[in-house]
Amino acid sequence: MTKQRLYLYDTTLRDGQQTAGVQFSVPEKIEIAQALDGIGIDYIEGGWPGANPTDSDFFDARPQTRATFTAFGMTKRAGRSAGNDDVLAGVMNANTPAVCLVGKTHDFHVTAALGITLDENLENIRASVAHMVAQGREALFDAEHFFDGYKANPDYTLQCCQAAHKAGARWIVLCDTNGGTLPAEIAQIVGAVIAAGIPGDHLGIHCHDDTGNAVAGSLAAIEAGVRQVQGTLNGLGERCGNANLISLIPTLLLKDPYASTLETGISAEALAGLTKLSRKLDDILNRVPLRSAPYVGASAFTHKAGLHASAILKDPSTYEHIDPAVVGNTRLIPMSNQAGQSNLRARLKSMGIEVARDNPALPRILNLIKEREDQGYAYDGAQASFELLARAELGQLPQFFEVKRYKVTVERRKNRYDKMISISEAVVVVKVAGQKMLSVSESMDDQGHDRGPVNALSKALSKDLGPYQSYIDDMKLVDFRVRITQGGTEAVTRVIIDSEDGAGRRWSTVGVSPNIVDASFEALLDAMIWKLLRDGAQPA
Amino acid sequence: MTKQRLYLYDTTLRDGQQTAGVQFSVPEKIEIAQALDGIGIDYIEGGWPGANPTDSDFFDARPQTRATFTAFGMTKRAGRSAGNDDVLAGVMNANTPAVCLVGKTHDFHVTAALGITLDENLENIRASVAHMVAQGREALFDAEHFFDGYKANPDYTLQCCQAAHKAGARWIVLCDTNGGTLPAEIAQIVGAVIAAGIPGDHLGIHCHDDTGNAVAGSLAAIEAGVRQVQGTLNGLGERCGNANLISLIPTLLLKDPYASTLETGISAEALAGLTKLSRKLDDILNRVPLRSAPYVGASAFTHKAGLHASAILKDPSTYEHIDPAVVGNTRLIPMSNQAGQSNLRARLKSMGIEVARDNPALPRILNLIKEREDQGYAYDGAQASFELLARAELGQLPQFFEVKRYKVTVERRKNRYDKMISISEAVVVVKVAGQKMLSVSESMDDQGHDRGPVNALSKALSKDLGPYQSYIDDMKLVDFRVRITQGGTEAVTRVIIDSEDGAGRRWSTVGVSPNIVDASFEALLDAMIWKLLRDGAQPA
Repeated sequence: MTKQRLYLYDTTLRDGQQTAGVQFSVPEKIEIAQALDGIGIDYIEGGWPGANPTDSDFFDARPQTRATFTAFGMTKRAGRSAGNDDVLAGVMNANTPAVCLVGKTHDFHVTAALGITLDENLENIRASVAHMVAQGREALFDAEHFFDGYKANPDYTLQCCQAAHKAGARWIVLCDTNGGTLPAEIAQIVGAVIAAGIPGDHLGIHCHDDTGNAVAGSLAAIEAGVRQVQGTLNGLGERCGNANLISLIPTLLLKDPYASTLETGISAEALAGLTKLSRKLDDILNRVPLRSAPYVGASAFTHKAGLHASAILKDPSTYEHIDPAVVGNTRLIPMSNQAGQSNLRARLKSMGIEVARDNPALPRILNLIKEREDQGYAYDGAQASFELLARAELGQLPQFFEVKRYKVTVERRKNRYDKMISISEAVVVVKVAGQKMLSVSESMDDQGHDRGPVNALSKALSKDLGPYQSYIDDMKLVDFRVRITQGGTEAVTRVIIDSEDGAGRRWSTVGVSPNIVDASFEALLDAMIWKLLRDGAQPA
Repeated sequence: MTKQRLYLYDTTLRDGQQTAGVQFSVPEKIEIAQALDGIGIDYIEGGWPGANPTDSDFFDARPQTRATFTAFGMTKRAGRSAGNDDVLAGVMNANTPAVCLVGKTHDFHVTAALGITLDENLENIRASVAHMVAQGREALFDAEHFFDGYKANPDYTLQCCQAAHKAGARWIVLCDTNGGTLPAEIAQIVGAVIAAGIPGDHLGIHCHDDTGNAVAGSLAAIEAGVRQVQGTLNGLGERCGNANLISLIPTLLLKDPYASTLETGISAEALAGLTKLSRKLDDILNRVPLRSAPYVGASAFTHKAGLHASAILKDPSTYEHIDPAVVGNTRLIPMSNQAGQSNLRARLKSMGIEVARDNPALPRILNLIKEREDQGYAYDGAQASFELLARAELGQLPQFFEVKRYKVTVERRKNRYDKMISISEAVVVVKVAGQKMLSVSESMDDQGHDRGPVNALSKALSKDLGPYQSYIDDMKLVDFRVRITQGGTEAVTRVIIDSEDGAGRRWSTVGVSPNIVDASFEALLDAMIWKLLRDGAQPA
């Protein structure tokens, strides 16, 4: 059977930018456009040229892409010709091969919001599409509020679509602008549009996630016949976001009825880069990646339940719907008090530590974990500390150095200009290669701002590690999470630190104490020791 | 038309606990169970009694609920009777009115994972359900891997369900254990099960979000006839999580075909508490609430696009699929002072502060909040600090005392018995009624354990507040949450402290600084001042 072509249209750079708190710079837009092009997206909507300086600059600087670059705008206003509408001219002047114009199709919005007649609106759609076509552009018409409009006045919404279609629009995109339409309704209404004479291979779908159904609504529309699907990376977008292309793409490529009947521009190789692409966007936005994200989340193939974990060890298909490698993700069997010896061995193996089934350290490690979790430790989210604990029990942890004592002071007082300031100071005494080293650091950064006692401790500790200095230099603390938890009968502080190094490695360590500084110091120490271990440092 | 009853089954305390990094304590489980009961959930699955100490302790301590409390376990093993299976006995011994047992229905899992014959497995299901019924429990059978099993061997999965049904199971729950089944398939297979003779009002659906379709899959199953839906708060759960009840509930109550044909145990009043419930769970887990969450996210009704925002001011229905108040959420139009001011007045009023519409302090307060939120403050979760900020601008905050300076030291070293110990010491200088008071405290508690620098500071600060002493005496710090967040261009620490007093009042305050001790001290100070204010202390 010949597969039909399904086109993927990305609007991360336009609708994705409507996400609260998101504001892309021009270089960021360029980086994202290149990443989208790299994975094989068909259309990249770059923004609204003329609407704001960043979007205009970006279109001037846009990269060469295999994907069809698309400018977004709106249909011409009433009372002037398409050629004389300056807003439309701003869009056309970006000189993109494709242009997508949004227009009203819901009668209430035409009369109430625009304040024009239904016929005037039809003429605006027709003339705008004809203008795009006359200028040699691939014309897309975004039918705003299409589904709500259809429910209110099906005839009129269909007339709008037909006006665009007859004027030569390559695509009419059915938009669920307010995000409230459920998948079954979408399927039914798309069917009605096709029955009214607009072929599915001229129809697109644009869903929002206001009920948590944007992906399902898009799939329903595709099953009903549309052949273009719009969405964003990681589901960015106004309010609850747009349909998440990162979730849609693997489903379309791997699952039926889509996989066997449709073809996209995305290769199996590109699919294996999906996890990386998703993380890259979070990186650009300085967001913590959503652990539970379908397909690409850090937890998407994490098996915590004891029964699941032991079955996975026999055959991964028992509790996995796809092989994680297909989307560039990895399987994880975390340590927790629900796991047994076989989990433990698998987990150690994934860290490069082979342990025989009957090694007497295994039950000792499990007991130790249980004991420490009772004290408030959490090894699920602190794999590096877990590794150190296991290595210590297995006799595979060299002693790089020993911390003899430390002292840290935080002082808040007025400075000579009568302004309240804080200063932290830390003294750390470390024994390295039989030699006692005493380091002191304060918490001021280059700009003279206090970064607090943990920072001062970290600086003092790493300042004078002698032979290990070169291993530690590229480490940085990237996240720091603290919570009060129950340790035995008393409340303790649990600190989890995420560290990163120059090679892009990221690892987590945990410390627990009633004293927050102590807990932080413990996690910090683990982070450094893990780094020394990973980099193959030799004990001095 | 009579509406049919749809039952909601929550598994936050069981499947939700399989979320990577989540480990509920007994008090947390009690708090969540009470919240679930408060909103009108029909079934609360509390965990697996006997599987781990926390779950066992929780069932011993479980609260009285209107909801049907349910214990989870697995069907009896082969080669012994239901009455002689100790794992099953552990579950039954929790004495819950309902028991839900998971069992295999996928032939491959029966033969490969359990290593028993298909007939033995059928008998395990039958005997286990019969055992529950004989003991007077409402019996639920969780059909594990049901959809994958159906696709491999439809006859056998149906035999498993029929065995449970005939043995008297109130519910047979169809589980998409691996989360890979798409909504259309779910609908079709549910239809086949009903056609095979198991009525929909004895069927439940249990979906996972591995393709981002857990909500849509649940809705598809309900439309196909099942009358119980399982899920978790905020979609917690193994891997990508379970169907999110927080997303499902409003759709079921507000949207057709569900709203007009089905009835749940959730009232319109309870629905208005949904946003609060969702945030409460994040609070317990010390998670940042997902801004883009359907219905309840902070961005769910945030209108950033200029065209949308101006239309919303004329008529909210133009870009909103529901009224946010219906689910207890609020509309947010960034940069719109008008919307901001009326919200602010409403919020102040709820704290007993009446402010006239034209009070010039209103825009000042809004600007201050915006400024401070840019610095990393969060007033959503720190109402007491927000009140102090507003009162200060309104000239309604007396100065009780002034902190001139403080100094805190944390030292870790060996004691005389060669054991590593920590000691913290704090000195605080306060001016009260024109008089300078100097207090020092160390962090040891009655048992000689170090409680850390924040404890030492708190003790020193409250030690010598002279005329205010009696107001402060019954205060205690009950929770302490710390998060690294972005303040301007640099990472800062945000500390939120929950305090409680003898009258059972509980209030939250916030402090922000790159220095964790400073941030804690700021939140601590706010907590004390709010207490003085609430108790009507007079400035000395």
